[in-house]
Amino acid sequence: MAENEHLVRSADPNHPSNLICELCRKFYTLGWVTGTGGGTSIRHGDHIFIAPSGVQKELMQPSDMFVMDFNTREYLRRPPIHRPSACTPLFLAAFTAGAGCCIHTHSQWAVLVTLLVERDFGVDACFEIELLEQIKGIPKGKGKPGNLGYHDTLRVPIIENTAHEEDLTESLEAAMQKYPDTYAVLVRRHGIYVWGDNVHKAKTQCESLDYIFQLAVEMKKLDLPWKSS
Amino acid sequence: MAENEHLVRSADPNHPSNLICELCRKFYTLGWVTGTGGGTSIRHGDHIFIAPSGVQKELMQPSDMFVMDFNTREYLRRPPIHRPSACTPLFLAAFTAGAGCCIHTHSQWAVLVTLLVERDFGVDACFEIELLEQIKGIPKGKGKPGNLGYHDTLRVPIIENTAHEEDLTESLEAAMQKYPDTYAVLVRRHGIYVWGDNVHKAKTQCESLDYIFQLAVEMKKLDLPWKSS
Amino acid sequence: MAENEHLVRSADPNHPSNLICELCRKFYTLGWVTGTGGGTSIRHGDHIFIAPSGVQKELMQPSDMFVMDFNTREYLRRPPIHRPSACTPLFLAAFTAGAGCCIHTHSQWAVLVTLLVERDFGVDACFEIELLEQIKGIPKGKGKPGNLGYHDTLRVPIIENTAHEEDLTESLEAAMQKYPDTYAVLVRRHGIYVWGDNVHKAKTQCESLDYIFQLAVEMKKLDLPWKSS
Amino acid sequence: MAENEHLVRSADPNHPSNLICELCRKFYTLGWVTGTGGGTSIRHGDHIFIAPSGVQKELMQPSDMFVMDFNTREYLRRPPIHRPSACTPLFLAAFTAGAGCCIHTHSQWAVLVTLLVERDFGVDACFEIELLEQIKGIPKGKGKPGNLGYHDTLRVPIIENTAHEEDLTESLEAAMQKYPDTYAVLVRRHGIYVWGDNVHKAKTQCESLDYIFQLAVEMKKLDLPWKSS
Repeated sequence: MAENEHLVRSADPNHPSNLICELCRKFYTLGWVTGTGGGTSIRHGDHIFIAPSGVQKELMQPSDMFVMDFNTREYLRRPPIHRPSACTPLFLAAFTAGAGCCIHTHSQWAVLVTLLVERDFGVDACFEIELLEQIKGIPKGKGKPGNLGYHDTLRVPIIENTAHEEDLTESLEAAMQKYPDTYAVLVRRHGIYVWGDNVHKAKTQCESLDYIFQLAVEMKKLDLPWKSS
Repeated sequence: MAENEHLVRSADPNHPSNLICELCRKFYTLGWVTGTGGGTSIRHGDHIFIAPSGVQKELMQPSDMFVMDFNTREYLRRPPIHRPSACTPLFLAAFTAGAGCCIHTHSQWAVLVTLLVERDFGVDACFEIELLEQIKGIPKGKGKPGNLGYHDTLRVPIIENTAHEEDLTESLEAAMQKYPDTYAVLVRRHGIYVWGDNVHKAKTQCESLDYIFQLAVEMKKLDLPWKSS
Repeated sequence: MAENEHLVRSADPNHPSNLICELCRKFYTLGWVTGTGGGTSIRHGDHIFIAPSGVQKELMQPSDMFVMDFNTREYLRRPPIHRPSACTPLFLAAFTAGAGCCIHTHSQWAVLVTLLVERDFGVDACFEIELLEQIKGIPKGKGKPGNLGYHDTLRVPIIENTAHEEDLTESLEAAMQKYPDTYAVLVRRHGIYVWGDNVHKAKTQCESLDYIFQLAVEMKKLDLPWKSS
Repeated sequence: MAENEHLVRSADPNHPSNLICELCRKFYTLGWVTGTGGGTSIRHGDHIFIAPSGVQKELMQPSDMFVMDFNTREYLRRPPIHRPSACTPLFLAAFTAGAGCCIHTHSQWAVLVTLLVERDFGVDACFEIELLEQIKGIPKGKGKPGNLGYHDTLRVPIIENTAHEEDLTESLEAAMQKYPDTYAVLVRRHGIYVWGDNVHKAKTQCESLDYIFQLAVEMKKLDLPWKSS
């Protein structure tokens, strides 16, 4: 048994280790974490709770959870039967930017959107869409109160995939710098990272984006343009 | 804790506050209220029960519910942690027209249908389809007994989206006047409002319409016409 | 309360009134009985158990069930709050042909298949497909032991829809005479009737057909032919 | 009642007969075992646990399970009400190759992929795709540590379907010899066999492949190529 069991055991359903398990069960049903893909992490004070690598997400238990100290980057709890998530440095990049929760999915709609942008716009590494009500589910940007309006354009930067997930960190951070208002980065042929101020916001933003990606793919099938001009 | 807790607490599963929670869980699974989108309201006598804004619909609890007096339009119960739904004036328009329940969804099929009508018919702001058995799930119109027949044309007016949801009220009311028989109004690039004499009717009409919209989108993909002529 | 409550109350999960409720919950999830559409009936000896009209299928209770005597065609139990199912004469046609269970769905895949046959083959009122393993889920025909083989062609007759569901009976019976081996009849722009020797067979045949219809629709989208020649 | 009841009764959720039931319920929801199609088998020491033929997969109980001795190929337990699975010789081929679990699905995405390869490449009996993150969910091959990398090409051989499932054994074994690294074989117009070192690996590999097949079908609809060159 891993040390510091007390860090992940709680009867409170809102404890981070319980929330991660509940989220992962939901994400499995949504097709976001098929085949142990994807991941989820919550920051609670100086503690980072991270779902392990290679575990069936719908079966995850609090005892499977890694806990890292945000300041020292050292594991406070490391279940010996699991490998730490390769997403960890990317989650930390989101937390460093102020996030309280970060979700990584392999959503097929996200992947298809990156392929469609590649085909239609070559090297232009940004998904853009406008005039959809659901855009109002995405915040304006860090330090800017409120969410995007119906007449705003939604932009989600796309970074190129790498052989090793941890090697995405540099380009993720670069995209966060180039698009300081974004709460999400698409990864070409791979999926998406979405973060938010807290669990509620990260989850609902991730849902809103996935809804928009699915709609965008269906629009392509029906030859409907993503932008009016 | 909000005042008038007794208005929303009941062991009866058919109490409006319990019904709204159950409906919202179902609607989440159907993809109608993704990312806290959409909403639901029930009129029970002079009390209007309304799901709050910005809450994860599948997690909604009776204690989250707003209650408004239909005559005075004053809140009898207003949970301080929540914002009232921006759909409220639209729900009230439906209740004023005699509805007992009103459902607002962001269904992707509804959104796609509004985009297809826009593309194919320009400014013509009405979805029309005919010769589908499921059309019989929609009532003929207020004061007209029974439902549409198989040989009737289903018409659902489409109004333009606005920057703020409450600003839809005027055009929703105008659509209700122009199409006095309708129990639903589509909102371009946004979703749909469906109402009915009671919860059962509103829910089954909403399901029937969504079924027809999905079928209509699939028909377009397969180059099958919505109307015979 | 309806008379003869004892006919529908049982602790046995395999009692027809319990089975119909369980099946309807499953069919709701499969999208077969959206908006109170569709229906299910089981013959048990001389008793016909029938789900009522206009009830939310996922909420059905044993107490909602109608019971008819197969020989006299008189209701042994008729819940006063419900209308009998308009599918009743069609269910009886299947039971007269020897079925033990009959399922009626509004599956969108079934509806789309009837539209595609109409477009591609004009008046030819039969869906035909071949060389799919799942065809082996369909029996050869009444009195013929075993199921279709992989090299057999699956044929499901299509009848035209009528304004009133009960008026389908004559053409359903005609299709059953013209295609004596069939266990299913598609109804144009409406759905399908599937029956089987017992509940297990009717349900699994209905699933196999729906799987094949969905595959057939996807094949059309991908320009893949239903038949090799 | 079958003999050797003790072989399939256990309170341990990780007992093979309990795991098969749980997997089959999940696979039913995923649409992999519709209409009693598909099958699942686990090897535990010298005991092979096999789901029976023709049973509704979501209703399967431990008491439905067949148990075979791996060495003698004799049934240690054979429920008299069931027929043994026609997949048995194919499962045995996988176990002989070292697998601990083998899953057979009728996934529509798998079937569509075999049809698309047939159309686009004639007799070339191998599905190939590259540059998708999810490819990393598939192992490199027997005796080779680790999984495929992002820059590796995924290859899944396709064998022709036969009239009788057991007659697939020879060509399955031939495909395993020709593609010694594969953990899966597609069956044209039928489905897929996926195996793994244990239940966890077989299930997650099956999920990863199905995800890739669905993505591949969607890519075809959107005219996106499976390979870069």
